[in-house]
Amino acid sequence: MARFDLDAHLAADTATIGDWTLSRVLLMNDSRFPWLVLVPRRKGCTEVFDLSTDDQNMLMAEIARAALAIRAVFNVEKINVGALGNVVPQLHVHVVGRRKGDAAWPGPVWGSGKAEAYSAASRRSWVERLSAELATVPAD
Amino acid sequence: MARFDLDAHLAADTATIGDWTLSRVLLMNDSRFPWLVLVPRRKGCTEVFDLSTDDQNMLMAEIARAALAIRAVFNVEKINVGALGNVVPQLHVHVVGRRKGDAAWPGPVWGSGKAEAYSAASRRSWVERLSAELATVPAD
Repeated sequence: MARFDLDAHLAADTATIGDWTLSRVLLMNDSRFPWLVLVPRRKGCTEVFDLSTDDQNMLMAEIARAALAIRAVFNVEKINVGALGNVVPQLHVHVVGRRKGDAAWPGPVWGSGKAEAYSAASRRSWVERLSAELATVPAD
Repeated sequence: MARFDLDAHLAADTATIGDWTLSRVLLMNDSRFPWLVLVPRRKGCTEVFDLSTDDQNMLMAEIARAALAIRAVFNVEKINVGALGNVVPQLHVHVVGRRKGDAAWPGPVWGSGKAEAYSAASRRSWVERLSAELATVPAD
């Protein structure tokens, strides 16, 4: 199987948490929202229908798993899920915890204001805490 | 099984195309974008993890089917998929065809400007054309 390479923009905007069966699990470097990004480790996919049916089912299971973990770790009222890809075509799915009154509420997080980067220490701390909750393996 | 009732806001903003195995299929009344909304016909669901695993798999299959139909009928470059629910909690998934230079490109369609309603004739025409492509059955 062709090697999966993470898009450079996604890599620049995130910290790696680890790999699940299908997806690389990333933490978006924006402290305004608890925000995970799932990237199926398949080459050349831009739309969900580019995945096999088995991979589509796995992606849905991993979305549900990410959503449940965000709800378990953070105090959120709603989960937003989105696969857009207008800027970065590599198929990736945002799973974002939302709270009433957060920086974009009730609008979408995409394109809303400017990201506020985590401090190195707090990013490390969230990656560790989420890695434990998400039970990922280290990415290759 | 408890009867499924479509949220009143969703009903007001859309035209009904029909029912698939899991979802009611709706056309968003916004002529700026080719925009379908899938609403799983299950009572009390607000997040994807509220669905059974079988329903989650069916939802993913129906998202892929809607995305392929939009690509077949409209001249689009990208599909955007989103489940937000910050305003309307009933679980619903947007499947939207996007083109470079459309009214919100490259941002998200949600919260972008004001919807531009179809004329009655053009809405009817799109519903008919999409119904044929999507092969839905009339909604109850």
